[in-house]
Amino acid sequence: MRDVSIVGVGTTPVDKHWESSMRELGVRAINEALLDAGVGRDEVDSLYVGNMLSGKVVDQENVGALMADFADLGHVPATKVEAACASGGAALQAGVKGVMSGLEDLTVVLGVEKLTDVCQCEVNEGLAYAADQEFETFHGATFVSLNAMATRLYMEEFDVDHEDLLRFSVNAHRNGANNPDAMFQSEIDLETAMDSPEVADPLKLFDVTPICDGAAAVVLAPSERADEYPETPVEVSGIGNAVDSVGLHDREAFVEMAATVEAAEQAYDMAAMSPGDVDVIELHDAFTVMSAMGLEDMGFVEKGEAPAAAREGRIAVDGDLPATTMGGLKARGHPVGATGVYQAVEIVEQLRREAGANQVPGAETGIAQNIGGTGSNVTVTILERGD
Amino acid sequence: MRDVSIVGVGTTPVDKHWESSMRELGVRAINEALLDAGVGRDEVDSLYVGNMLSGKVVDQENVGALMADFADLGHVPATKVEAACASGGAALQAGVKGVMSGLEDLTVVLGVEKLTDVCQCEVNEGLAYAADQEFETFHGATFVSLNAMATRLYMEEFDVDHEDLLRFSVNAHRNGANNPDAMFQSEIDLETAMDSPEVADPLKLFDVTPICDGAAAVVLAPSERADEYPETPVEVSGIGNAVDSVGLHDREAFVEMAATVEAAEQAYDMAAMSPGDVDVIELHDAFTVMSAMGLEDMGFVEKGEAPAAAREGRIAVDGDLPATTMGGLKARGHPVGATGVYQAVEIVEQLRREAGANQVPGAETGIAQNIGGTGSNVTVTILERGD
Repeated sequence: MRDVSIVGVGTTPVDKHWESSMRELGVRAINEALLDAGVGRDEVDSLYVGNMLSGKVVDQENVGALMADFADLGHVPATKVEAACASGGAALQAGVKGVMSGLEDLTVVLGVEKLTDVCQCEVNEGLAYAADQEFETFHGATFVSLNAMATRLYMEEFDVDHEDLLRFSVNAHRNGANNPDAMFQSEIDLETAMDSPEVADPLKLFDVTPICDGAAAVVLAPSERADEYPETPVEVSGIGNAVDSVGLHDREAFVEMAATVEAAEQAYDMAAMSPGDVDVIELHDAFTVMSAMGLEDMGFVEKGEAPAAAREGRIAVDGDLPATTMGGLKARGHPVGATGVYQAVEIVEQLRREAGANQVPGAETGIAQNIGGTGSNVTVTILERGD
Repeated sequence: MRDVSIVGVGTTPVDKHWESSMRELGVRAINEALLDAGVGRDEVDSLYVGNMLSGKVVDQENVGALMADFADLGHVPATKVEAACASGGAALQAGVKGVMSGLEDLTVVLGVEKLTDVCQCEVNEGLAYAADQEFETFHGATFVSLNAMATRLYMEEFDVDHEDLLRFSVNAHRNGANNPDAMFQSEIDLETAMDSPEVADPLKLFDVTPICDGAAAVVLAPSERADEYPETPVEVSGIGNAVDSVGLHDREAFVEMAATVEAAEQAYDMAAMSPGDVDVIELHDAFTVMSAMGLEDMGFVEKGEAPAAAREGRIAVDGDLPATTMGGLKARGHPVGATGVYQAVEIVEQLRREAGANQVPGAETGIAQNIGGTGSNVTVTILERGD
């Protein structure tokens, strides 16, 4: 089993890119990652593309071939990997397995999503494809309404004040203010978050993420060759992926995501680490309740204690559990199938000590949680600064 | 690099399954494959699902989690793999890499597609997502019209009679007549094929494949453990995947698929084989011209000579180049994202010597070509009878 490292990263800013098509965004991220790794297009062995809604929104599948074509990568093997909002994390892990298999050396993983340019009702319809069509969406449930119910339950189960959930959002916006790739680069205060309009009771505007476009790419190589590339390599020490029932009604628990618990366990085992070894935590904060559950389910705090951790400032960049350090899904934005790759890029920036004002001092390890559906498909990835 | 074998297979018949949903078809194939391998659900380490159009047709993404959920596989890692009509082949190869990586032992690969239950204009729209949205489909090209142009060019370039292309269809139907899973279990003669209605000039009805539903699954295991399972194991000796420009206008050649040539080369290299070592040939015969080009591009005959090979009966089960031995896409049917897995199952049946009236005597090796788009994403897989 050979070790795999990230030797190059590239992103577009997350935004409503009215001027760029999906393929253009993807090419920009790939180009930047290849440049960062100092490698030519003809050196690439393979391409994996994380994407969820290209069919629904862009009328385009076959996105693996399309991106290889327009990024001029020649006849490389290329496929699209889909796991709803965890498509980026799943594509990253598919790429890691590709290199681990010994069949591929230099591999590019791209996450790309283009959600503007169409009626946003189409996007909402598409996002609900992550839920169970027969048992949830057919009956009118939207993705936001399902998460609203999960939020209500969590608040009641642990007697949580809404404002303690919104502190995750305030923290994310504080960090996003220093991230030039972030969609929202302005801080908000708790009062603004609490006074924001309701989206679906009890969710307020600042509990949820924006609809946006973006692309992020990483270049993978066998760790034994990682010192051939110009930047500090970052090793993929652990990967985990687990699923749960797609419909919320079939879950054993609503206030805990079994898929996160299981995926984190796989990743910790492979990395031979425990939560105490992790310096940077990228949560899939699509909804504030997901931030809270993520912190708990990956073992950083006990069940029900994440809101208190947020209140006590522990999730800030200078806290002991620095979370969503570059703005998270909330402020950096959530270009669905690209998010998991953005998370990896941001951890790489932290471990290379290039995170600027958001730098977690001396960060050596980071963990990224990427959630598909309402917790039905979760990837957890642990990254470690190379020597 | 560890070797991987297929130790279990399962399929539903290919048909218009008005009575079954996508998830039901998938579960049936998984159940049958697990039963064939003699393993329990709790032994499965991982699931890969090949599927192209679940979003467009079923309003459902997150199909990896959904199928794991309904097949009761627990919290296993699960993702969907998409490469247009090559999604099944791509999922199979992703599964093989998963086992090769050492992270997974017992892995299930499912190909599933549900294309009925909606207006067929929706399906035609969706199939065109395999082509280039900006440069082809936006301008009105359908998937059939693109292949009609490719057919015309091939016929003119090599001075081919249409009836020699249709011989691939007659051969496929002859074999399909003996396949209980085939959608069309009746032979046709050349006159019937030639007299069939035009679909898009010059394509006739029997040049093209039906729209249908189906699911096929295989169980993969490390070859070193393959003798723990009841059936004769079949080793995955070689895999190859290559892409080409998605738009036909950007290709270097129209009468040859560079992606097939490249993917076959990778697979032959890995298997340390050449075309002369192959006993059974599963072509991606979505259009008769694709059968001809596939036979040529994988090195079985010279360029332009495939129609003559068909005329001379070489592609029949008792010929020296037995092709589409269980009916191919034409007669077994082409449930898009499932097709690549059906091909693998059919080669396994040949190598286990369970192909009944279609048995290629003493078959030891088989090759499957699975094409996405008009040749923009091709997988080639070589299977070999285990000891």
